[in-house]
Amino acid sequence: MNATPQATSIADAEAAAGTRERIVRTTARLLQRHGYEATGIKQIGREAGAALGSVYHFFPGGKQELAAEAIRHLDRQFAESLRATLDTEMDPAKAVVAYAQSLAADLQDSDWLDTCSFSALALEAAHRSPEMQRALADAVEHWQRVVSDKLRRAGIAEHDARELAGTVMNTLEGAGLAAQIVRSEAPLRVAGTHLSRLIRSYT
Amino acid sequence: MNATPQATSIADAEAAAGTRERIVRTTARLLQRHGYEATGIKQIGREAGAALGSVYHFFPGGKQELAAEAIRHLDRQFAESLRATLDTEMDPAKAVVAYAQSLAADLQDSDWLDTCSFSALALEAAHRSPEMQRALADAVEHWQRVVSDKLRRAGIAEHDARELAGTVMNTLEGAGLAAQIVRSEAPLRVAGTHLSRLIRSYT
Repeated sequence: MNATPQATSIADAEAAAGTRERIVRTTARLLQRHGYEATGIKQIGREAGAALGSVYHFFPGGKQELAAEAIRHLDRQFAESLRATLDTEMDPAKAVVAYAQSLAADLQDSDWLDTCSFSALALEAAHRSPEMQRALADAVEHWQRVVSDKLRRAGIAEHDARELAGTVMNTLEGAGLAAQIVRSEAPLRVAGTHLSRLIRSYT
Repeated sequence: MNATPQATSIADAEAAAGTRERIVRTTARLLQRHGYEATGIKQIGREAGAALGSVYHFFPGGKQELAAEAIRHLDRQFAESLRATLDTEMDPAKAVVAYAQSLAADLQDSDWLDTCSFSALALEAAHRSPEMQRALADAVEHWQRVVSDKLRRAGIAEHDARELAGTVMNTLEGAGLAAQIVRSEAPLRVAGTHLSRLIRSYT
């Protein structure tokens, strides 16, 4: 039995999937660090160790298509870490404090370079393509749902939970930006305290 | 009496001040709309109606120096409008709701294009020059002081007022970004409601 052709095609498919994944992850990292405008498709190829032809093979739509895919990747990755961190505490008020602390730690580890999420990127890029705009709006909606599920499990009514979840995410986003500007975890620590106080006023 | 030489030099000085001012305002507008990276110094000259040589005459440090000056201009302009809006209501909880509404109206008027303030710009630009970093940090500090003065006049203790002021600004910043992504005033309206609830819990 000669398995070589199939094995080769599986290996090829795996290599292709690996290359595609590497391009997406590299794009996500560069977008988070430098923004959309400052990230070039040649730089993406170079840092992902992929030929430019390979980048266009996977993403014929170029930087816009690639950025939308990178945003979806960041969305999933971020939602997963958000859920995991919130799950470390039963009480949602404490969970939000824990989450604010983890954002502060991540930012400090990156020497205040990475964005907490990607609203800033959104601002730069959202008006460039409907696909990116949609990926960004979906991500915002997704994260808000993760937080509102947590709040509802603690007995907060659906409408209140949805609105609170929006403010939790927006406050942490704004506090994360301030933390980067002043290079201190203080804005995130204070945001955690205030958000837990706000959440408690609903429970 | 021949007043011409002096009159001419005053006119020249006024024209120069006018040109400089126009360059700074144009830079501020472009930075707010397109970010630092996407704003070119040639474009600034063109849109300000100033020769490139004139731009470099006023700002020998080029785009970095000009951006820092534009940030200081935005800082003053924003602080003034923040103070004026907060002064429309005696009660700080109501004042913050009024301010959130005015941000939402401004954003809607700009077809969701302008940033509320410039944290997003900060994120893109803060690591490029110490002068810009300082102008941004000064602005954040300045706006926070405007809000904390308002809170203290309502009897909130100094430490609480300072921390609350930070969260007010950061929450509105994050909500403004979300409003742009989802193209709706809802995040800012909800932020106003939550912030006023939080402020009331301290009065």
